[in-house]
Amino acid sequence: MTITVRHLAEWVRGEVLGDGDLPISNARTLAEAQPGDITFVEHDKHLTAWHSSRASAAIVPHSVPVNGRPIIRVADPLMAFARVVQQLRGRPREDGPAISPMALVHPTARLASGVCVGPFAVVGENSEIGTNTTIHAGAIVGRYCKLGEEVVVHPHATLYDECVLGNRVVIHGNAVIGADGFGYRVQNGRHAKVPQLGWVEIEDDVEVGACTTIDRGTFGPTRIGAGTKIDNLVMIGHNCNIGKHNILCSQVGIAGSTTTGDYVVMAGQVGVADHLTIGDRVTIMAKSGVSGNISGGSQVLGMPALPHREQARIMMTMEKLPEIRKDVSRIKKHLGLEDG
Amino acid sequence: MTITVRHLAEWVRGEVLGDGDLPISNARTLAEAQPGDITFVEHDKHLTAWHSSRASAAIVPHSVPVNGRPIIRVADPLMAFARVVQQLRGRPREDGPAISPMALVHPTARLASGVCVGPFAVVGENSEIGTNTTIHAGAIVGRYCKLGEEVVVHPHATLYDECVLGNRVVIHGNAVIGADGFGYRVQNGRHAKVPQLGWVEIEDDVEVGACTTIDRGTFGPTRIGAGTKIDNLVMIGHNCNIGKHNILCSQVGIAGSTTTGDYVVMAGQVGVADHLTIGDRVTIMAKSGVSGNISGGSQVLGMPALPHREQARIMMTMEKLPEIRKDVSRIKKHLGLEDG
Amino acid sequence: MTITVRHLAEWVRGEVLGDGDLPISNARTLAEAQPGDITFVEHDKHLTAWHSSRASAAIVPHSVPVNGRPIIRVADPLMAFARVVQQLRGRPREDGPAISPMALVHPTARLASGVCVGPFAVVGENSEIGTNTTIHAGAIVGRYCKLGEEVVVHPHATLYDECVLGNRVVIHGNAVIGADGFGYRVQNGRHAKVPQLGWVEIEDDVEVGACTTIDRGTFGPTRIGAGTKIDNLVMIGHNCNIGKHNILCSQVGIAGSTTTGDYVVMAGQVGVADHLTIGDRVTIMAKSGVSGNISGGSQVLGMPALPHREQARIMMTMEKLPEIRKDVSRIKKHLGLEDG
Repeated sequence: MTITVRHLAEWVRGEVLGDGDLPISNARTLAEAQPGDITFVEHDKHLTAWHSSRASAAIVPHSVPVNGRPIIRVADPLMAFARVVQQLRGRPREDGPAISPMALVHPTARLASGVCVGPFAVVGENSEIGTNTTIHAGAIVGRYCKLGEEVVVHPHATLYDECVLGNRVVIHGNAVIGADGFGYRVQNGRHAKVPQLGWVEIEDDVEVGACTTIDRGTFGPTRIGAGTKIDNLVMIGHNCNIGKHNILCSQVGIAGSTTTGDYVVMAGQVGVADHLTIGDRVTIMAKSGVSGNISGGSQVLGMPALPHREQARIMMTMEKLPEIRKDVSRIKKHLGLEDG
Repeated sequence: MTITVRHLAEWVRGEVLGDGDLPISNARTLAEAQPGDITFVEHDKHLTAWHSSRASAAIVPHSVPVNGRPIIRVADPLMAFARVVQQLRGRPREDGPAISPMALVHPTARLASGVCVGPFAVVGENSEIGTNTTIHAGAIVGRYCKLGEEVVVHPHATLYDECVLGNRVVIHGNAVIGADGFGYRVQNGRHAKVPQLGWVEIEDDVEVGACTTIDRGTFGPTRIGAGTKIDNLVMIGHNCNIGKHNILCSQVGIAGSTTTGDYVVMAGQVGVADHLTIGDRVTIMAKSGVSGNISGGSQVLGMPALPHREQARIMMTMEKLPEIRKDVSRIKKHLGLEDG
Repeated sequence: MTITVRHLAEWVRGEVLGDGDLPISNARTLAEAQPGDITFVEHDKHLTAWHSSRASAAIVPHSVPVNGRPIIRVADPLMAFARVVQQLRGRPREDGPAISPMALVHPTARLASGVCVGPFAVVGENSEIGTNTTIHAGAIVGRYCKLGEEVVVHPHATLYDECVLGNRVVIHGNAVIGADGFGYRVQNGRHAKVPQLGWVEIEDDVEVGACTTIDRGTFGPTRIGAGTKIDNLVMIGHNCNIGKHNILCSQVGIAGSTTTGDYVVMAGQVGVADHLTIGDRVTIMAKSGVSGNISGGSQVLGMPALPHREQARIMMTMEKLPEIRKDVSRIKKHLGLEDG
């Protein structure tokens, strides 16, 4: 498929500067682009990369000057480029039947208009699925679940009974929502299970990554606040109350009954103990271990987690530790303070 | 649904003190309860929370005194409360056919009485399923597996061939039991696979969390001892021999051929190296990294893991490290011992 | 099943020394073997274990001397033993139909000869499956995927659209290939999704563990180089470019856009930040956290990761830290340098 720069500019409603008749056959990033490709420049800081890129044209912000190759100026180059990629590579999805004849939808389930259910997917009894929601192949929606509008449940995602999902929630492949919380009591030398009778509530616009697990509450809900984004392989323990617009990166683990505020960010492999309160806009840096409450606005690092500045100073000093030890030995010798 | 305190007391065989005719419409925990709710008090230490709770009634241990609101005294308030929750919120499961017509059970598989197999579930050739065991929707039981009585295999759990599960084992959603161990040998600059011909044996009363993986042994079994509870996203390497009544919290990883004793506890995100022996009743605190054997009864912490007291002292001193460094500089200057 | 040592030697083309008529009924490792079993000795360093083993016979390298019990000398005892185990325990797989009548293969998909597709598996539109490839029960291959020859996709593995797999690739159970990268931009106080329009390319002879996730690139590919082996529960972020013959152990996480060279080894629970370059033959030890580029051939450890020798010295000194602190106090007192 080949198309002119001018035509692309029409798709993205941008302003062409330079040769609008240049034919474009592919769209790739600055580093990967080849002659014949269009690319994009997201910020002025990528100008050097644009000058050395092999691309024949670029979608750029208004601030980028002409440099000989045609450019398309737009307000949001990233989204404009995404639209171009979709148009150039786009593969039409053949519309199968909305409800696959190989899906199993319980007769008591209520499906709004526009709902799609893929093959080998299950929608359990008394579940309710909102308008334009898609349940992909092999996904399982348990009993008494309630899914909002335009939700996407990817292949093999598993929703246990009684999960509640808001609008535009996305659950990626093989994620598990609503499995039993990890709660036991010791009785006669054995771990006796505490019944896990609660549920999971996921608010609007939450995205849950592949193979992530969010356990159901013991008696009440485990909650994920609106707009929160959760990466792959994350664990959210039972009874947690995660705030709005959190970012939880891959392999984060949050133990049971912990509450986070809004706009909390946890980088990869962070662990947070149970029954804690993490304030609004806290940032927890990668691999940190949190065992106490954190007040709003803090940035913490390390195991145990400390304020970032303090921990960074400690970590830098740690590299000097063998030298410090030698110094102390030397001083002791100098002063005749050796042990024994 | 509304019901009197007296009626609830009959369900849980408890003793009513106060107004038994009070109508109750919901059951929630101390912090979440509203007027009209019944709640529960597990220990005396929650008495303050009970006094300030908005709940209209409570299920309490025998030690809790009357405080004006009706109480139900029982020996085990948690379990009594769980029974009340189930009764109040209970949703009858509509009994479908025991073996879904959309399941695939191999003709050579042997199913005892009371076995349920959900839609799109598979039971492979020559597998044997014990009395009252449930294989949920989309779960896969491979060939030559042997499952005990009252086992529950949740949706999308995958049992490779030749897994052996005792009685009352629970496998949660998307867990994978019996995938190949991670064993390779370098041959001609490539990683050549060591055949993984063993199996997995899980003893009675083990619970395995969602998205947890337990690899098969190389030539023999990977074993999980009776009563051990494993949380979500845990990795158990090939040839491991996990003892009885262990608690392995979320995101723990145990490398191949490691043995643990009985009553071992590993908190979240612990990592244990391969070919180690961890003694009975060892506790490994969160995020610790274990690279050597640990003798019975120890409590360890950190990376590398050290006895808890020792490590805690080191961690506390670490916070003073920049100050210690400054002191050493000052001393060196004082003594004229500066470098160079 | 019972068979003579001589007969076993014929299977593995080995040389018998001692009583070739001895009957053998099972094959177990040195530690587990019982009388009547054959075992194997991989290296001379296991000679003591062989002398004390209860096994009746052994498969050994050429260097092992006779010790009274019959031995079979071969060049590669491990592989010879594996062949014996398979023969002794082997359970013939009943050949079902190559394409299960309960699979869903889209009419536009192109399947080469010898392809098997299990029950409840899906092959999406326009996907292409190479000779002798097996798609196990419940596995999902999306649209426009391209799988090479002799690929094995285990139960419940999920391949999103447009995944490209080379020859002899193995994807274990519940792994997810090609889910959306974790990319957002803050817009009006919300995390707006960056479209994830790329794909995943996995080269020849790669093995991907159970519940591992490899996200698709944003506009281009996420790549895994030939011969790389990935354990369970590993996360590979979007746009990563993993080299050839890497070993990525369980629970490793690599954030987006990071590149690794060839023969890189990451031990368990390692975390690597985004946009980094890790050189050829780098070894990253267990639980390390990498936040900067690493040059080829290095071995690093710790959080933050430092060269192994340096870090090991620091870790050893750390254990002396409380003592060092006391010494510094003592020196300050001795010199009259106490604070305040």
